[in-house]
Amino acid sequence: MIKTLYEIPELAKRNSTKTLAIAAAEDASVMSAIQQAKKLGLVAPFFIGNSAKILAIAEELNIVIDPSEIIDSNDENESCAIAVKLISQGKAQILMKGLVPTGILLKHVVSKDYGLVSGSLLSHFALMESPYYHKVFGLSDAAMNIAPSLEEKIAIIKNAVDVFRGLGVETPKVAILAAVEKINSKMPATIDAAIIKGMNQRHQIPNCIIDGPLALDNAISKEAAIHKSIDSPVAGDTDILIAPDIESGNAIYKCLPFLGGAKCAAIIVGSKAPIVLTSRADSEETKFLSIALSVLIAK
Amino acid sequence: MIKTLYEIPELAKRNSTKTLAIAAAEDASVMSAIQQAKKLGLVAPFFIGNSAKILAIAEELNIVIDPSEIIDSNDENESCAIAVKLISQGKAQILMKGLVPTGILLKHVVSKDYGLVSGSLLSHFALMESPYYHKVFGLSDAAMNIAPSLEEKIAIIKNAVDVFRGLGVETPKVAILAAVEKINSKMPATIDAAIIKGMNQRHQIPNCIIDGPLALDNAISKEAAIHKSIDSPVAGDTDILIAPDIESGNAIYKCLPFLGGAKCAAIIVGSKAPIVLTSRADSEETKFLSIALSVLIAK
Repeated sequence: MIKTLYEIPELAKRNSTKTLAIAAAEDASVMSAIQQAKKLGLVAPFFIGNSAKILAIAEELNIVIDPSEIIDSNDENESCAIAVKLISQGKAQILMKGLVPTGILLKHVVSKDYGLVSGSLLSHFALMESPYYHKVFGLSDAAMNIAPSLEEKIAIIKNAVDVFRGLGVETPKVAILAAVEKINSKMPATIDAAIIKGMNQRHQIPNCIIDGPLALDNAISKEAAIHKSIDSPVAGDTDILIAPDIESGNAIYKCLPFLGGAKCAAIIVGSKAPIVLTSRADSEETKFLSIALSVLIAK
Repeated sequence: MIKTLYEIPELAKRNSTKTLAIAAAEDASVMSAIQQAKKLGLVAPFFIGNSAKILAIAEELNIVIDPSEIIDSNDENESCAIAVKLISQGKAQILMKGLVPTGILLKHVVSKDYGLVSGSLLSHFALMESPYYHKVFGLSDAAMNIAPSLEEKIAIIKNAVDVFRGLGVETPKVAILAAVEKINSKMPATIDAAIIKGMNQRHQIPNCIIDGPLALDNAISKEAAIHKSIDSPVAGDTDILIAPDIESGNAIYKCLPFLGGAKCAAIIVGSKAPIVLTSRADSEETKFLSIALSVLIAK
C-alpha cells in the first residue's frame, strides 16, 4: 500500500484523463483544486454554473478556461441535474460538488431518472495519511450513513474494498471497530463485528480479510493487540477502518487532521461515478487529493 | 487551564498526601507507577493482594515496601472488597485496580454495602494533552457508559465539570459532540446536544458553558467553526469534549495517543473516591499521571 497521499496523483497520472462534472462550480477553492489536477493531466473539467462568476473567479486565480468547458446555469438545482446527466450519459466519469448544499446534489444522484445508484449503497470513504502509521489507510463511513444496519455495513465494506482494489491492494485488511475487542451482547457494534467477521470467513464478503470487534488501538497497533492477547491477521496492519456509526466515524475523521497532523482525501463511493463532496472547511489540498483519488478509481 | 499533563503532579504536590488502596496490587507496571507517585509524596499506598508476589515484584523493581503497607489477600474478590472498604471507612481516598478484571472491582464499588456510589453516575474521564491543541482538555465517556441517556449524559457532564473545578477551572467550556453541527431529527446525538445546551442556558447544568452539537473540528478549531459560520463561546477553546456514546468516545480516546502523539490520564469519577482503572495496555506514564490526577481531585 502507498505510504503518502501524494502518491495518488502520481499513480493517477498513469490513467487516462477523466472528465469531471462540477455542479455549481462558482467556488474559488474548488476551481483552484481542479486547476491543480488539470495541470497534471488528471482531469478535463465541465464547469456547470453561472458562467460570468466562473470566468471572474478564473481571472482572479489566473486560470485560463476555454468557453467549451463551461455549461451555463443560474439555478443550483438545474446545475446539479446537468452534472448528474453527464455522468449518466457517460460523458463524465467523476462528479464534484461546488457551491451547492450536499442534499440538493445527492437528490439528483439517487434519482431513478439517472440510474447512478442501483443495487448499491452510497457511502463516504476517506483515505488518511497519518505521521503515526506506516501506510495510508481507509476510513468509512464518517459522513453519509448515520446508523448503518448490518446489511448497510456490509455494503460500506464492499465499497471501501473496491476503492482499495482500485489502489492496487488485492486483499485489504479490514478492522470492524468498536469500543472494546470482546463481543458483548449489550454493545451492538461488537455483535455486528462478530457477524461480519464470520461472513468473511464463510466467503460471503470476498476480497478482504476482516477482523473485529477491534478497538482503534488494536486495529492500528500490533503492540496494543498483543497486550490484550489478540491474535489477529489485521491488528496492527489495518488497511480499512470501518466505524460502527457516523458519530464514531466522524470523530476519527475529524480527530486525525485536527489533532493528529494527518492528511486526507475523501469521496462518496457506491454510485456509477465517484463523487467529490468536500466541504467548505476542507483545505484545497484535501480537495485536490480527493479529485486525484477519484481519477484513480473512476471507470 | 494547564498546558501539559506533567503540571498535574506538580499541582498535586501542594495537596496533602492521599492514601491509595490498590486491589490485587501484584502487578509490576502498577507498582512502578505508584512508586513514582510515592516518591513525590503524592500517595501512601495500601497494597492489597498476595504479599509474597508483591514483595517479589518490589525486590525486582528495587522498591522498598514497609510490611505495614501490605494487606495480604489471595483472593481477587476479597482483595477488591478490602480496598473498597478502606474507601468506605475513609481510610483511603483513592481506589486503584491492579491485576483483577474491571468488572470484579466495580461490582464492589457499586455495592450498596459500601455506599461509594449514591445518587451519582460512575463515568470515565480522560484528560488529554495533544501537541495540536493549546491546552489540556477532558474527554468523557470513553469507556464506561455504553449508550448514555439524556439524564446520564448530564451526569457525565457534571462529573467532568467537577474534575475541572478541581483543576482550578471555575467555568469550563463543554462541547457536546456529534457528527454534524446542525440539529437533525434523524441524529439523536444532535437532539440531545440541543437539549443539554438549552438546559445549560436555563442554569439547569451549572458551573460550565455548554455548546452543541459541535463536530470535533468545530469544538477544537475556531477556524473550522468560522468556516461553518458557527458563533460559539466554546468552539476552538473547548475544555471538555462530551461524546455521544462509548464508540465515539473510545475512538477519540484511542486515536489521540495512537495516531496523534497525545498523552493521557484517565480515572473513573462519580464515586466517593476517584478510581484509577487503567488497563494493561496503558503505559506506565499514563498510570502515573492518572494517579496524580486522582490526588488532585480526591477529597
